[in-house]
Amino acid sequence: MQYFPPALEKLVEQFARLPGIGRKSAQRLAFFVLSLPEGEAAEFAQAIVEAKSAIHCCPVCQNFSQGDGLCPICQDPKRDESVICVVADPKDVMAMERSREYAGVYHVLHGVISPMNHVGPDELRVKELVARVSAGGVREVIMATNPDTEGEATAMYLSRLLKPFQVKVTRLAYGIPVGSHLEYADDATLLRALEGRREM
Amino acid sequence: MQYFPPALEKLVEQFARLPGIGRKSAQRLAFFVLSLPEGEAAEFAQAIVEAKSAIHCCPVCQNFSQGDGLCPICQDPKRDESVICVVADPKDVMAMERSREYAGVYHVLHGVISPMNHVGPDELRVKELVARVSAGGVREVIMATNPDTEGEATAMYLSRLLKPFQVKVTRLAYGIPVGSHLEYADDATLLRALEGRREM
Repeated sequence: MQYFPPALEKLVEQFARLPGIGRKSAQRLAFFVLSLPEGEAAEFAQAIVEAKSAIHCCPVCQNFSQGDGLCPICQDPKRDESVICVVADPKDVMAMERSREYAGVYHVLHGVISPMNHVGPDELRVKELVARVSAGGVREVIMATNPDTEGEATAMYLSRLLKPFQVKVTRLAYGIPVGSHLEYADDATLLRALEGRREM
Repeated sequence: MQYFPPALEKLVEQFARLPGIGRKSAQRLAFFVLSLPEGEAAEFAQAIVEAKSAIHCCPVCQNFSQGDGLCPICQDPKRDESVICVVADPKDVMAMERSREYAGVYHVLHGVISPMNHVGPDELRVKELVARVSAGGVREVIMATNPDTEGEATAMYLSRLLKPFQVKVTRLAYGIPVGSHLEYADDATLLRALEGRREM
């Protein structure tokens, strides 16, 4: 049986590590990269290295941001820093921003509490959220984790954790279809969810 | 509306260029890369650069091969060089090798003739095939392009092109796939299977 030449095999393996990419797709992607002009393949490789080195987490909201300083949202003077929207992932910030309605700031947890996957509060940016709230000046914390079991449990955990700080903790309304993901919600649904948020 | 930081956006765009990867998937892949440890992301980038620089086409069969020399199959003295199996893509060589039965050599066209996609014989490794056959010592050329319209047309075109060299040109048999069911076979396949029936 003939295998791929080692350098090609290595590239296939790298693609196969990506989420949702099986061995067959990885082969297809590797062949595509080989078919690219040399300069474009180099650009691809460069984009990976650069993204990895240029993108850091914002020291306040923990969202991905270019460079070491605050992210554009935390820097924006028009944003209301007394309202914090807590989301699981940076892509959820994008989703919330699509509603064009939310004027507060964010806090990105980088995951949800998931005992099955050995993710506890310590693996998430929970300490940083507590620090922000305990520093004062926060009126409301909106829990915008996904409306699934883990997102729900994370929201519940955080709301209990934040109780002592006398801050209003709300949850996005179930305008979002239960069991789906924020990332795929349409703008109108997100807007409804934002308007209908309730104290928890 | 908030966009991704530029370096992240660039990485998303690079992933979105890959075949079968839409913008949403590209985001998912980019986030995954960002979540990798620095060293592993660098390895990924390295694999792209290395595959691109190390993998060349074998000067004889045009299959992907590491380094500038002949590919392992063309180098193998146990291979019968008088039989050439013509395939469209390097992955088809892998497929043929899985049969563990074929002992001849290959010729990879790197595509099929497709007027719709502006691919003519000049875009394929047709010249190289003709050169191999005209150099002599070839008994048989097996056309193993896909049994679809374009694969069929390409096989037909090549068989006519090779006629003057007095070489036997054959085509892979059509029939019912082993392990499948008659009731699910389409009419054309059944007809071909019937035509190609053999005495047992």
